[in-house]
Amino acid sequence: VTEDELIAAIAALCHPERNRRATPGELLTIGDDAALWQPSRSHRSAISTDMLVEGVDFARDMMSLEDAGWRAMSANLSDLAAMGAKPVFAVVALGFREETSPQEILEVYRGIAACAGNHKTAIAGGDLSRAPALTISITAVGEVRPSNVKTRSGGRPGDVLAVTGPLGAARAGLALTRDGVTIRTELKDDALRALRRPLPRIAEGRFLAASRNVDAMMDVSDGLSTDVHRLSNASGCGAVVETVPVAESARAVADAKDEDPDRFALGGGEDFELLAAIRPRAFTHIASRYAARFRKELLRVGTLRAESGVVWRGAPLERSGWDHLGR
Amino acid sequence: VTEDELIAAIAALCHPERNRRATPGELLTIGDDAALWQPSRSHRSAISTDMLVEGVDFARDMMSLEDAGWRAMSANLSDLAAMGAKPVFAVVALGFREETSPQEILEVYRGIAACAGNHKTAIAGGDLSRAPALTISITAVGEVRPSNVKTRSGGRPGDVLAVTGPLGAARAGLALTRDGVTIRTELKDDALRALRRPLPRIAEGRFLAASRNVDAMMDVSDGLSTDVHRLSNASGCGAVVETVPVAESARAVADAKDEDPDRFALGGGEDFELLAAIRPRAFTHIASRYAARFRKELLRVGTLRAESGVVWRGAPLERSGWDHLGR
Repeated sequence: VTEDELIAAIAALCHPERNRRATPGELLTIGDDAALWQPSRSHRSAISTDMLVEGVDFARDMMSLEDAGWRAMSANLSDLAAMGAKPVFAVVALGFREETSPQEILEVYRGIAACAGNHKTAIAGGDLSRAPALTISITAVGEVRPSNVKTRSGGRPGDVLAVTGPLGAARAGLALTRDGVTIRTELKDDALRALRRPLPRIAEGRFLAASRNVDAMMDVSDGLSTDVHRLSNASGCGAVVETVPVAESARAVADAKDEDPDRFALGGGEDFELLAAIRPRAFTHIASRYAARFRKELLRVGTLRAESGVVWRGAPLERSGWDHLGR
Repeated sequence: VTEDELIAAIAALCHPERNRRATPGELLTIGDDAALWQPSRSHRSAISTDMLVEGVDFARDMMSLEDAGWRAMSANLSDLAAMGAKPVFAVVALGFREETSPQEILEVYRGIAACAGNHKTAIAGGDLSRAPALTISITAVGEVRPSNVKTRSGGRPGDVLAVTGPLGAARAGLALTRDGVTIRTELKDDALRALRRPLPRIAEGRFLAASRNVDAMMDVSDGLSTDVHRLSNASGCGAVVETVPVAESARAVADAKDEDPDRFALGGGEDFELLAAIRPRAFTHIASRYAARFRKELLRVGTLRAESGVVWRGAPLERSGWDHLGR
């Protein structure tokens, strides 16, 4: 059973008709980066939830507890960014071990609050629980204009697939803490920052969401190779991956490990860049406005097409990213 | 450091001024059962989050995985009930061990969906993660009329403290699965149901929230002895506990264990009854309407008073309930 299959089984279980509310206009989604909800006619809220577990998603030799808190909050805000939403607040459930000191708990919260504060997101409440490993479970709530909501399923054949920045830096950071690889200092700093203090692309997400020519959006959290499959499947399309924009630090690490840099970046999740499907005629215009606004490139990675399946270098692209049920 | 002290330190960390949003009319609370949010002028949303961990909050010899899922959802809905809110939807983050089968994960979800469906609450999304123990982290969102919002802090000296039903049944259920106690079959069934399939008091909460004479409300999730302290502290009062309404099954278990039934029930959390502070002149009227509506009694347990501290049987009442940092 793959993660996506299990999620489909869960969705079937959670969406019997009696479970759906009759309120007209209320939106509820499962399978997107965040759930959508319509509290009143003019408002849409997006809600995302994410759990980070010590020993699974982070370890103390990879990052500090403050970094772990930051990362957990960032993962949630990234999910909101993927829906085009502006974050408003979050609630935090924290599980901790008997040996965890109050200082350590506060360290985690310091990272959570720093990342939240960076994006004007309030921490509105939470829960504390004993657990066999430090567990950070955050739910973030954001707002989005009804007309700006983007999901994974709006892509159309012909759409240009683009990402908000180069990929693989967080994976490079992980390799630096784990595999004893050495690369140039500035690139090392970049990679470790991508791993420990990733930035949710809130502004980029809102910029793209404001365009009617952006058909679909999601964040690249499990690796482009996996997430292109997810976006194109959800949109009832296939895709061709033409170029993989590899982060400089990822290229250096891949070179040092004697690996294919493209493949390394394709399998690198959690850079929190956004993947968007954009109408082909509008792409150049959007990309130039994006470059002017953010002083970086909107990077074309491929094209959606009617035939199902994802193709790269003329062959089916395997999902090389993280599957939470795998390994 | 007690749990309440740690929560205060966390709240201080999360609420620096730069973390507060400027939107007028937006409400954000920390320390209540749920966070409150105002998505638009006419709406208030309440958001609660709770984490249940196998081996800490439940074990397989106590309940099935379906029960655990039910309980996790119920705990969240109970927090919404305590704010007077009607639940709308929830998101679920589930951590599971390598050995956990997809069938077991679906069993947990079946319990979550059953409890949610019972209260017309949709499951709108979630997250799956590896973890060293089965971890169920749910965030539920509800709606409440602005004029009906109840918090812990609205109590006034003289208010009658009342609970929506007798206490201690869930603790009795726990003792039955753990301590090898034997009691009459119907009482045993009651106790095990209270432990495994607790009902959030949504209707009771909304009924009480609709009255202007109810000043404060919370759910009894960590034991009345602890929660009376919390409500009276938050309200800047003290309290006298006059009567402890002991559930029949709790009395039977306490008798079998040769313990004081009142003390047993005072320390019994997670019955999910609501504790309300009600204006003294209105109490009789509200209690009689409550009895007519719910065919059970609104049970008086004591009185708020100006002097701080909680008194029971003429002496300070110790917090005997669950402290997540204790033991």
